[in-house]
Order: sequence, then C-alpha cells, then structure tokens
Amino acid sequence: MPNEGMYLSDIPLDQAWRRLIQALEAEGLWRPLESEEVAVEDGLGRVTAEPMWARRSVPHYHAAAMDGYALRGRATDRASERTPVDLLLGREAGYVDTGDALPAWADAVVPIEAVEALDGTPGKAIRLRAPVAPWSHVRPLGEDLVATELVVPSGHRLRPADLGALAAAGYSKIQVWRRPRVAIIPSGSELVPPDRALEPGQIPEFNTITLAAQVGAWGGEARRFPIVPDDLAAIGAAVASAAEADLVLLNAGSSAGSEDYTARVIQSLGEVLVHGIAVRPGHPVVIGMISRPSAGHHRTPIIGVPGYPVSAALTGEILVEPLLRRWTGLPPDEPETIEAVLTRKVHSSAGDLEMLRVTVGRVGQRVVAAPLARGAGVISSLVRADGLVFIPPGVQGVEAGETVTVRLYRTAGEIDRTLVALGSHDLTLDLMAQFLSRRGLRLASGHLGSQGGLVALGRGEAHFSGSHLLDPETGEFNISYVRRYLPGVPVKVIALVGREQGLITAAGNPRKIEGLEQLAGGALAYVNRQRGSGTRLLLDYHLARLGIAAATIDGYDREEYTHLGVAAAVASGRADCGLGIRAAAAALDLGFIPLFQERYDLVIPLAYYVSERLAPLLDLLKDPEFRQAVASLPGYDTTPMGELIWSTP
Amino acid sequence: MPNEGMYLSDIPLDQAWRRLIQALEAEGLWRPLESEEVAVEDGLGRVTAEPMWARRSVPHYHAAAMDGYALRGRATDRASERTPVDLLLGREAGYVDTGDALPAWADAVVPIEAVEALDGTPGKAIRLRAPVAPWSHVRPLGEDLVATELVVPSGHRLRPADLGALAAAGYSKIQVWRRPRVAIIPSGSELVPPDRALEPGQIPEFNTITLAAQVGAWGGEARRFPIVPDDLAAIGAAVASAAEADLVLLNAGSSAGSEDYTARVIQSLGEVLVHGIAVRPGHPVVIGMISRPSAGHHRTPIIGVPGYPVSAALTGEILVEPLLRRWTGLPPDEPETIEAVLTRKVHSSAGDLEMLRVTVGRVGQRVVAAPLARGAGVISSLVRADGLVFIPPGVQGVEAGETVTVRLYRTAGEIDRTLVALGSHDLTLDLMAQFLSRRGLRLASGHLGSQGGLVALGRGEAHFSGSHLLDPETGEFNISYVRRYLPGVPVKVIALVGREQGLITAAGNPRKIEGLEQLAGGALAYVNRQRGSGTRLLLDYHLARLGIAAATIDGYDREEYTHLGVAAAVASGRADCGLGIRAAAAALDLGFIPLFQERYDLVIPLAYYVSERLAPLLDLLKDPEFRQAVASLPGYDTTPMGELIWSTP
Repeated sequence: MPNEGMYLSDIPLDQAWRRLIQALEAEGLWRPLESEEVAVEDGLGRVTAEPMWARRSVPHYHAAAMDGYALRGRATDRASERTPVDLLLGREAGYVDTGDALPAWADAVVPIEAVEALDGTPGKAIRLRAPVAPWSHVRPLGEDLVATELVVPSGHRLRPADLGALAAAGYSKIQVWRRPRVAIIPSGSELVPPDRALEPGQIPEFNTITLAAQVGAWGGEARRFPIVPDDLAAIGAAVASAAEADLVLLNAGSSAGSEDYTARVIQSLGEVLVHGIAVRPGHPVVIGMISRPSAGHHRTPIIGVPGYPVSAALTGEILVEPLLRRWTGLPPDEPETIEAVLTRKVHSSAGDLEMLRVTVGRVGQRVVAAPLARGAGVISSLVRADGLVFIPPGVQGVEAGETVTVRLYRTAGEIDRTLVALGSHDLTLDLMAQFLSRRGLRLASGHLGSQGGLVALGRGEAHFSGSHLLDPETGEFNISYVRRYLPGVPVKVIALVGREQGLITAAGNPRKIEGLEQLAGGALAYVNRQRGSGTRLLLDYHLARLGIAAATIDGYDREEYTHLGVAAAVASGRADCGLGIRAAAAALDLGFIPLFQERYDLVIPLAYYVSERLAPLLDLLKDPEFRQAVASLPGYDTTPMGELIWSTP
Repeated sequence: MPNEGMYLSDIPLDQAWRRLIQALEAEGLWRPLESEEVAVEDGLGRVTAEPMWARRSVPHYHAAAMDGYALRGRATDRASERTPVDLLLGREAGYVDTGDALPAWADAVVPIEAVEALDGTPGKAIRLRAPVAPWSHVRPLGEDLVATELVVPSGHRLRPADLGALAAAGYSKIQVWRRPRVAIIPSGSELVPPDRALEPGQIPEFNTITLAAQVGAWGGEARRFPIVPDDLAAIGAAVASAAEADLVLLNAGSSAGSEDYTARVIQSLGEVLVHGIAVRPGHPVVIGMISRPSAGHHRTPIIGVPGYPVSAALTGEILVEPLLRRWTGLPPDEPETIEAVLTRKVHSSAGDLEMLRVTVGRVGQRVVAAPLARGAGVISSLVRADGLVFIPPGVQGVEAGETVTVRLYRTAGEIDRTLVALGSHDLTLDLMAQFLSRRGLRLASGHLGSQGGLVALGRGEAHFSGSHLLDPETGEFNISYVRRYLPGVPVKVIALVGREQGLITAAGNPRKIEGLEQLAGGALAYVNRQRGSGTRLLLDYHLARLGIAAATIDGYDREEYTHLGVAAAVASGRADCGLGIRAAAAALDLGFIPLFQERYDLVIPLAYYVSERLAPLLDLLKDPEFRQAVASLPGYDTTPMGELIWSTP
C-alpha cells in the first residue's frame, strides 16, 4: 500500500471509505468518541451518549389541574340543583391553585367557577349543585412521565423540549458524546492571510475558514493552524504537532505537483491509505493515519484536502461530515432530496463520481435544476448552489430534460420561495436579489443570454427572463423575438431599465479606441460575449452595417458570460476592449466609449405574472428605494421601469 | 385596553400579533435590531445585515490551473507531430505550479505531461507537438468573482462556503444583525431548581431551560433569572430589572388565578396589550410593553408565558420565534409540512386554534399521523412529537382517516426512517427504540392496546403491532384475534417475550391481597387498563371464570393506558392494586402477586416483514445484547424471542 499510495491513482469513493473505516476500526476509532458530562441547560444540539430514563415521575404527586377546591368526589355523589351539597373548608374541601398538591384525603378538584358561595358562612364552606367525579381536574402522579420510562434514547440530538423534559425527569447533568477536535493546517507558500493586500500569485487563505465552519456546523471543534510554507520539514512538524487532535486536515499540497508534500509527510509520519479518489471536484484527496506520540495506543486519521476551494468544501462533505457523525453518535446523514429536471446537458468524466452544483426552483408544476459553473476553483458556485447532483461513475453525462435527484442544501420550503430567472445578465438582477430577499424571496439567476432565456421560458424552466434583443428590421427590442421563440406562451413584456452600451477599454483608453471600426484587421484584442446574448447580437448587427467580417477580429471567439466578465478581461489586459454596459466599466474603473442605447426588459409568462409568487417582484418595480438604487448605477435609466411594453394578444 | 387587558378574554392569534406589531412599530422595533461587526470566521449561522459585494476579484490575477509551463498560445500555432515547436525556458516558457500567476507575456499553460523533454538541452527548453490554445489551463482574473459582484445578499444566514467566499472576496469583518437578548424570569412559590429533591406541591423549574434553549436555537441570547416567589413586589422588581433586554419572558402567573400576577405587574410597569389568545395549549398568554428606565426612548415587549410546559414551549414557537426571526433579519419561517392521514378522531374546541402534537411515519404508501397526549402539562408529548397539526378555530374536530397538514419538527428523511408500532405497550418497546436508534431507525410507538393495534394494522397505519391477546377458547395467544381482525392482510406473528402478569400492590402488600377474588364488593380500589388492551381481556376472562361482576369492582372504570401508568396509580395511593406485569411493579418498587404467564408477540404484515426498512428490527431479535437487556428486566423470559408463531396460510 505505501508505494501505491505515493502516486495519484484514483479509487472509487466507497473503496476509499472502506480503507479508512478498516484503519479506524483497527484503532478502535470507528465508533463514537468518549462521552462527557454537561449541564442539561448546555445540552442543546448535543447527542446523548446513553438512554435517559426518567429518574422521577412527572408530576411526582397528584396535582390540581385548575384553580379551585380539592375534595373527595364521593362526597358530592348526591349533589344536584335541588339538593346541593355543602362542604366545610379545611376538613372536606380546601382551596388549591393549579399545580398545588392534593391533600391526602382528596381525589378531585372542582373549578372555582363551579362553586357557589355559601350564604352566612363566607370562607367557611362551599356549596355544590352537581357531583364531581373522582380524579376530575387532577393531574395524577406520572401523567407525563413515570419514573423509569425512557425520556430520550441514546444517539439523540437534543432539542429544547428534550432538555426541559430531562430536567423535569430529574436530570441536571447528562452524558453526551464529546465534540471531535479537528486540527486544520493550511499549507502553501503562495498563501497569505485573507485580510492582507494581495500580490499576483498570492492566494488568500480562506479554505480553512470554510473547513472550520463545516466542522463547527457538524458538531466538532476546529482549530485553525497558521499557514505553513511549502517546506517538507515545516509541514511535517506542523502535522506532527497536530496529531493529538482526533482528526487532522492538511489543506492543499495533495496533488502530484512539485510542491505537493502531503503524501510524503503522511508517509513519513505513518501510512498513506488512499491517494486520489475518483470524484470531481476533489479527486486529489489523500487519506492516511499518522502516529500519535504521546498516546502510543493509537494513530490519528489525517485527510489531505485538495487546495481548490470547491474541492476542499466537497471533501469536507463526503469525508469529514460522515466521520464526525459517526464520532458524535449520529446515524449517517440522509440528505433531503428532490427530483428535478436538468435544464442543460452536462458531460461527465465516465470514471468519476461527478458532484454537479445546481440551482433549483419550482417553476409551475416542475422542479428545475440549472447547472452552475463546474470549475473546482469557483467557490461562488457553492454559495449559489441549492444542491448537488451526483452523477455516478460510468455515466458519461446527463441530457437536458432528464430527471435527476438533487441532494438539497436548502429546505423544500426555500426552494418554493425561489424565483428562477434565466436569460441575460444585468447588474440590476443582483440588486433585485438583494431587495427580494428582504421580502422573503430568493432569486436564482442563470446567465444564458437573452435568446437562451427565451428558449428556457418556452421550455418552462424559468419564472421570467431578462432580455435586450435588438430587431435589426424594426429597431425595436425583444417583441419580435418573443413572438418567434414563445409562440404558444402568453407573456407580458415589462420594461426594466434603459442602459448604455459601448466599448469597455483600459482606464484612460490608452489604445485611443473610438468605435467598432477599429476592430477590423486584428490590431486590437477584443473580448466577446457568448452566442445568444443580446450584446453579441448588437455587435453582429453593427459589424454587418459596417461591413466588418467577424473572422478579421482578434478575439471574436473569446467569450465571456457576463458584462463584468468582459470588464475583468479588459482590466487584466487579456483584451483591449469589449462591448458592454457602462456600469460594468465603472465598477472596475475602466474606460467607456458610449455607442448605443438599449432597453432591457423582463419577459414574464402570464401564468406567473398573475401569480402570488411573483407579486413581490412586480411590487419591487414600483419601490422608490429600488428605483433609486438602480438609478445610482452608472449608465442606467429607470424612466421606463415597470412600463408594459407588450402583451401576447 | 388596560381594563380589558386585565381579564382573560381570548382573542385570535393573528389579532394578538397585530396588536404586538403595532406596539413594536410605534417603538421602531418591528425591524432587525442593530447590526454588529464580527470576524468572518465567527460568522457561521449569523444573518448578514447588508449586501456584501466582492471587494476584489477572485482570482485577482491570471492563475495557472495546472502544473506545467506558461507560454504564449500563438507561439505554438504550428506545432504538430511532424513539426514540433521548441520554446526556450525563461523567455518563451516558464514552469508554473497550479495557482501561480502567469508571467505578463504568457496567456496559456501547457500541462507538464503534454511536454516533451528536449534532447541535448535539458532544463533549457521544452518541445511541443500540438498547439496550445490561448487561455487554456488558465483561471482568468475574476473567473470566480469579479470585484463589485454580489457575494451574498443581506438577510442571508451564513453557511460555511459563504464564509470562505466572503474571505476570498476581501472581507475579514462582516456586518451581521446582533443577537436579541432575551431575559427569562421564572415565577412561582411552588418552583424549585430542577436538581433539588422535591416535596409534593413543589414543581421543578424547567420551563426556562426549554425557553432558553429555544431562544438560543433561534439566534438569540437567553439569560435565565433566579426563581421569583409569588409576590407582586418581587415579580415587579425582577421584571423592571430585566427591562433592558430586548424581550422579557415572564413564565407562569399568566392565568387568572389568585397568584397570577403577570398582568398586574405588566400593567404597573407599562401596558397590557393582550390577555389571552385563543390557542390550545397556551391560551392564557399575556403580551405587553413595559417602560425601559435607562433609555427613555422606547419600551420593551414582554410576554407572560403560561406555566404548563407544553403551553410554554408552544408560546415560544408561535410568538418568540417569529419575533426573533424579524429581529435577526430573517423572513418568516415556512416550516416543512407533510400531508398525513390522521389515525384517531380528535375533538377540538371550536373557538380555539388547536395545536395537536402527532407522531408521523410512512407506512407503505401512506403517511400517517397519530395524535399524542393533549394535556398542556405533558412535556413528553413534545419530546415524542414529530410535528404539529393546526386545527383552525371554527373546526370542531377532525375525523379518523381525514388528511391533515403536519408542520414537521423532523426532516422528511427522518420520517422515512421511522418505524410505527401501534398496539400494546411493553417496556421492551423502550429498549427496542434505544437499540434501533443505534441502527439509524426511529421507533414511534403509540399505545392503543392489543386490539387497537390489530385494527390499526388492518387500516395500514402501522408497520407492526405488539399484542398479547388470550383466546379463552383455545388458551392460545393472538392467533385467533389476528385471523378475526386481519382477514385480508398476510402477516407473520413473531414471539417477542414471555412475561408474568399479576396484581401490582403497594410496597409490602399492606392490604394482604392474594388474588382477583378480593376485588368483588368494592373493598379494594382497583385501577384498570383501557378497553381493548390484552391485560383488560385477561382480567375479564378471569373475572368471568370467577363469577365476579365488573360492576361490583371499585375502580373498574378507572383506566390507565400503560403498565407503568397502573403502577404509578398504585404507588401514589390512587388505587390499592391493578393487574399488570412484574417489571412495572419492580420499576416503582411495588409489591407484585404473580398470577399468570403470557406471551407478547409482534404482528407484522408480510409486506413489511420482507422489507428492507424492517430488517434491522428482525436482526435485533437475534442480537445477544438486546436479548440480555430484555432478560435483565424482572419477569421477562426471552426464550421465545424471534420464534415464528404463526404465518397467514
């Protein structure tokens, strides 16, 4: 195994788990860790380490269930309207508040409002005109819990009412499984603390923040170590010093590159069990066991967590969470799942388990799942993800329209409160998400371009679509495209904003760019938007008018999916210019050559337009605060906002 | 309002909320509280107080996505198998690790494995036999996040990956809504700390443990005050001293009895808005506003929480949780719900919103909800509850078999992992719950008696049923009843245990009870089991043999639903004896006169017997540890455990 382990050779996830479990079992570690005693009031969320049986009955005496008079039911047997029964206070009846113990001679309570004041002897006797059945209005001993009854089983995660019940049943301290201690070591000479200003090549160290929060969320106690440079001895020393933890996570350095020391360090301190798991993202995981100097009787598991942030977070989910559940006495998690229709075809490497991040929304009667960016480095895709689709090894991909099972990150209720917008990207969608979240709605937006959005609307995959498609024939926006793409779907087209399109250039416009004419001939490096986007159509329209062939433009095929993506390409020097909106240029302090005015509309199928679910969105278009927030973006005109542009006849 | 408020006059829940919201709005308190700054690594579970836009792009430079050589793609355009291109290291190509910044002159990376070592000049040049497209194996600046893009909206509860993304985007501190501070004051002269030994009439004070844990679970900070006796001045002083909190919960004293000072105290310190809400359990709630001495500009809301533990916990759910959500910037909770078939008819007070606690399980294709004990004092019903059914005001009740909506306390996954046992109660079911929980299964058991269990099985409401029904004709247990009650349902009858039945008496048997004969004539107070229970049948069978008329027995109509309930009745002096099993007598250190031997079987429909879901239960019957745990209970014989008694032909 050691030799095999030194080289990346991916094995299936279940096989990796078998090796790890075998090694943990050999150490007696594939079971809950030790238990510890905590005060019952500190037990929220902890997992019981033993069954807890009632130590006393609740109530532990016969208790009055009403404010009234305790008495013997038999003594009232003959009471009626005509033949009232009088009971002397003190000997035959006694006042009790709710919760008071019944006197030994009493077996029932009559509520105060059923008792008549007795003339002549106020405060000395009561009069009853109806019999009181024995044991009425009494909470008998043990009504809630009888001593020795099970209150909560072991392996139970304690909720507020459980704690109350345990205290009631006589527990002031309880045995719970202790929290696993997890040491998290970031390694890499390129890493710097995330609050530092960054040079190119420096990477902010934020994976341990994600990993530590995961550990905390899963009931462990994380300890983040300082950053260790790419130095075999330094990493070895850090790992050795962490071996007293229950689990060590060594982040980055788990691939097979020149600075990847994880496997070597683990080898030197113990044994590599696994080097590479056939999962994507996340395959260069290392699993091993290292010796524990001070307590010779066992070794400590260590996981070499890949450096890409999505790989790191998903390694946490598929390896760390199940281990922490086992150690804290919980059964394996069975995540909530939902069946959903995939909106786009997805290719998958046949040998790997692919963990596809998706946004999920309920559109009409269907639940749709839209794939997010798949790069292992795109942490924002995890922020936006509503769940994961596991594409098993052996499957080459999933077709658009196929039904998939999504393991949800959110509750089904949150999915129901999600508006799905597929179409053109605009900065106002971020603002819209912001304002909708205050109204209890989530906005999940996918950037497919204007035409892609209309196609998605036609397939019933979105609640609405943002579109800015210029018709070269009419000079009008969107209407002719809506007619063409959505012939059978009654829709409303509502104006969102007017906005300026132009060429985004480097700050100060050093290349002296004035218009599209200069793109011909390849003297300027251009960055384009993707096929189907309104901006791409706008470019093609004007190129045709100017007689410029796309093939002569350097970078015509270099595609970005958002305005900000185009701006970023220019800012980084990847391109000299790209067509986009003024706000994107302004966001990154770039130059901007205004060329055209366009209107960006929302296309909303009638069925959703009139639905309660979308009402907050339509309200939003009238909200002065929202309009002002949009107007403050450079190049935006909110005058048309909310205007009905067109309605299917 | 003040005068009206002083008397209990229940108003609907929504009206109570309107009054509270109005009062909070007048104080500017019907919105999130102030925000506070926390370190991003401490942000897990907190709610963002502002939208967070990327402060830098991620990555903030063009980064190598593979270990390999940076180069200019254009320089490799003509590379082919026959016409390799050589690039000089240093000027035309440079080694990069994953994550390294591309040199300014480079625009692509060729993976190390695609490069040929160049003969003669090792380490000085590389040879390529295929072109490398510009920007391949590069993570361009802003691939993940472009500066100014929205990372998370405000009002977002932060998860681990969100924290990583925020750190990546340049945040080291974040603004989150501060946790509301909730003061919880227990009042009542009958209350004692829960770890104290109790006298009759003393009540362990555990409601504030439940309430404080609720507050913590909902994002607040609870402070539990010492117990205050029933003294108007003392309660007033405690409440006044708590008024600096964001919310005061004054527990108990909220009814209209002699010691109910809540309304009076609130009146003296401010204003009573609501005295009584038409909900059960929980109606004697008081809501008010009290003045805040040190910050004169506003008043503090106070809730008088009823004293019964279920009322207290549900008051938390319907009043405190929505308020804390508002204060922490979260939208109103929309609990997970499931449609289920109610197993028993339930009456409801027409004027009230009834919150019915139910256990829920998926039995075959149906989801069934079994009502739990409804008493406001039965905290164990909340421990056992899987959810609540809200029966709205105006509805008198719900029939058995009707479909109801359950607001779940558990996930649908947990419901799927639940085995539902309806039938006779036996102590081994508690042990079974305990052992099944280790196997990842929950056991939800409802005590309907043996016959009730068979009827429920016939209606498809349970996975199995515990039964000990003696056939007076054959002397055999269960089989003839199964034939009669389940004619169309193929079942297996599997023995669980043999057990001793006899008369449970007070310790030492002071009444010198020897057998059932002494019950005749009413000299002894008897406590019976409910109709349909095996023990009741056993009694009736022997009474008939002895020629004793039920009507002559004192307490024949006094019914308990479990063996422990019978034992508790005897222990408390409510009865002199009752028929039950030895283990129940032993649990409470009572006397026991053995009379009969009986067998307790599990009746399991074939469909579940062969199902994967029930396999752990059948395994359990062979588990030596389980058998030993059962055998250690007094009066239990595990010899027959697991034996197939009968199978539908």
